[in-house]
Amino acid sequence: MIQIKSSFQLSLCFSFFLACCVVCVGYATKPESKREAKIIAAVRAVLDAQRDAWNRGDVEGYMNGYERSKETVFVSGDNVTRGWQTVLDRYKKNYNSREKMGTLTFSELEITTVGNDAAIVLGRWHLKRVKDEPHGRFTLILRRSKQGWKIIHDHTSSA
Amino acid sequence: MIQIKSSFQLSLCFSFFLACCVVCVGYATKPESKREAKIIAAVRAVLDAQRDAWNRGDVEGYMNGYERSKETVFVSGDNVTRGWQTVLDRYKKNYNSREKMGTLTFSELEITTVGNDAAIVLGRWHLKRVKDEPHGRFTLILRRSKQGWKIIHDHTSSA
Repeated sequence: MIQIKSSFQLSLCFSFFLACCVVCVGYATKPESKREAKIIAAVRAVLDAQRDAWNRGDVEGYMNGYERSKETVFVSGDNVTRGWQTVLDRYKKNYNSREKMGTLTFSELEITTVGNDAAIVLGRWHLKRVKDEPHGRFTLILRRSKQGWKIIHDHTSSA
Repeated sequence: MIQIKSSFQLSLCFSFFLACCVVCVGYATKPESKREAKIIAAVRAVLDAQRDAWNRGDVEGYMNGYERSKETVFVSGDNVTRGWQTVLDRYKKNYNSREKMGTLTFSELEITTVGNDAAIVLGRWHLKRVKDEPHGRFTLILRRSKQGWKIIHDHTSSA
C-alpha cells in the first residue's frame, strides 16, 4: 500500500515536473517562433500580392514587391538587371500582353528568417500560357525597410 | 585690422569645427565599416579557398566552403539539391576528372553584409576547359556559425 502510494506520489511529481517543463519551454520558444511566424506571414503576403497583380495583368503592381531602389538586383541565366525601374522596363518589354503574362503560380515556398530584418525565400514559379508553360526556381532575398518587406535580390532560373 | 583679425578668428573657429566634425564622423562610421570590411574579407577568403581547392582537383576541399548540414541548399535550373553530402556526391559524379573540372575563376564579386552573421554574394563563375567554357552567375548566402563563414544557400545559373 505504501509502495503504491509512493509510486503514485512519484508519478504525480513527475507529471508536475513535465508540466513545468512544457510551460518553461513554451515561454522560452514562443516569442521566437511568434516573431518568425510574423515575418514569414509578411513575406508570404508580398508574394501573394505579386502573384495576384501579375494574374490581373498589373506589372507595376507585381513590381511593388521589389524595393524601389537602384540597388535592386534581378539575376537570370548569365544576366544581371539592376535597379527597380530597369527591372520594370524589362518586364514591360518581355511581357507586353496578357497572353505572354499567362497565369503565374508560386509553390513550395520555403521562407527562412535572417535576424529581424531579412528573409530568404526558395520557391518554384510556373507560368501557364496557351502555347507553353515555362517554370523553374527562384531565390529571393527580402529586407524590411521603410517601404515594408521588399525583395532586394532575385535570382531566377528556368527548367 | 580688427576685421582681418576677426575673420582670421572666424576661419580658425570654422577649421576647428570642421576638424571636430571629421573626428566625430570618423569615430561614428569607422567601427561599422571595419566590421563590414572584416566580414567581406572572411567571405572572400571562403571563395578564394574554394577556387584554389577546385583548381587542384580537390572537390572535398571545394565543398569545405559549404555548411556541413542537411539544410544546405544548391539550386540550379529547376533542380534543388539538399544536404552537404548530397551536393558533394553530385559534384563528384558530374566532375569525375580533372578535364571535366577545368580551371575555375570567380569574378565581379559583390559581397553585402546582412547584420553580423550573414552575407550575400553575387558573382560570375567561369570554367575553362579543353572543349568548352561554361559560365554564368551565382547568388550565395553565407552564415557565420561554429564552423566559421559557410555557404548555406547557392543559386547558380548558366549562360
